Amino acid sequence: MSKDFLEECLPILTRTPATLDTLLRDLPDGWTSATEGPGTWSPYIVVGHLIHCEKADWMPRLQIILEHGPDRPFDPFDREAQLRDSRGQSLSALLDEFGTLRRDNLARLRALNLDDDQLELKGTHPALGLVTLRQLLATWTAHDLGHILQVSRVMAKRYREEVGPWAQYLSVMK
Amino acid sequence: MSKDFLEECLPILTRTPATLDTLLRDLPDGWTSATEGPGTWSPYIVVGHLIHCEKADWMPRLQIILEHGPDRPFDPFDREAQLRDSRGQSLSALLDEFGTLRRDNLARLRALNLDDDQLELKGTHPALGLVTLRQLLATWTAHDLGHILQVSRVMAKRYREEVGPWAQYLSVMK
Repeated sequence: MSKDFLEECLPILTRTPATLDTLLRDLPDGWTSATEGPGTWSPYIVVGHLIHCEKADWMPRLQIILEHGPDRPFDPFDREAQLRDSRGQSLSALLDEFGTLRRDNLARLRALNLDDDQLELKGTHPALGLVTLRQLLATWTAHDLGHILQVSRVMAKRYREEVGPWAQYLSVMK
Repeated sequence: MSKDFLEECLPILTRTPATLDTLLRDLPDGWTSATEGPGTWSPYIVVGHLIHCEKADWMPRLQIILEHGPDRPFDPFDREAQLRDSRGQSLSALLDEFGTLRRDNLARLRALNLDDDQLELKGTHPALGLVTLRQLLATWTAHDLGHILQVSRVMAKRYREEVGPWAQYLSVMK
């Protein structure tokens, strides 16, 4: 296993379900269904998106790199899938599902025991072209953090008017 | 107690220490000491700042409003205090301290049993002028979310180069 890099990614990847669970579970709906305007994502929609990524993005693409290298491009990713798949499900159910899928995926990742050479293996992104397995793992990690950021931003901006004059001190409101 | 508004703020205010604990405790130092450049804050510095806010900002200012109204301006807040106060302390110790201070402050807030009229009481911010107690509570809440956002952003940007071509899909990297 390529210790240095993977041992940096794994602690973030491992924590994300618990972080979102702590932040969101059983919050009043006003927070978890808040958006930044029409067509933008609520915390609820973000969790559905993260579920779809576990199913269709990270590990499937990693497997394509390991099995086919750059010859077989990744399948395109559906950024709207959660709008169908989450329908009718509670946020609690989605948080549970995300936690289970992530745990299983990280168990599979660990079992691969990737070495440094494998991190440099290449795949073909349908739009971005050549990428490495290492870049895929870094993106998985940064993508988690980016969505924790998004969820926090969406909820903070719900109080843009409520904070009154303090808005000018809160960069999130700008 | 003014149920509607306080019952929205309290679930966020209650969760923040646990959210940051889940996200940060025992992470490799590379993550928790990362910054966005000279003079910017690491996750470690953010937790120190949140501690100082518990001691010197939210509840002390709320008490000034209740006891003095707008006649006595709030004491100015030291945004750099954590650079002195945190010195030599582990992140784990800071997370523990933040959790304890927040729990105590929310117990005091609940015990005040604020009603709707009290939420409209006014105080004087040394720079912003007249503010209401309700705006102070909203700002406390949004400020928490803004710093969860900041911590996530700082850590995600650490991988700006690592993600390679994916950077153009990750808005946090822009």
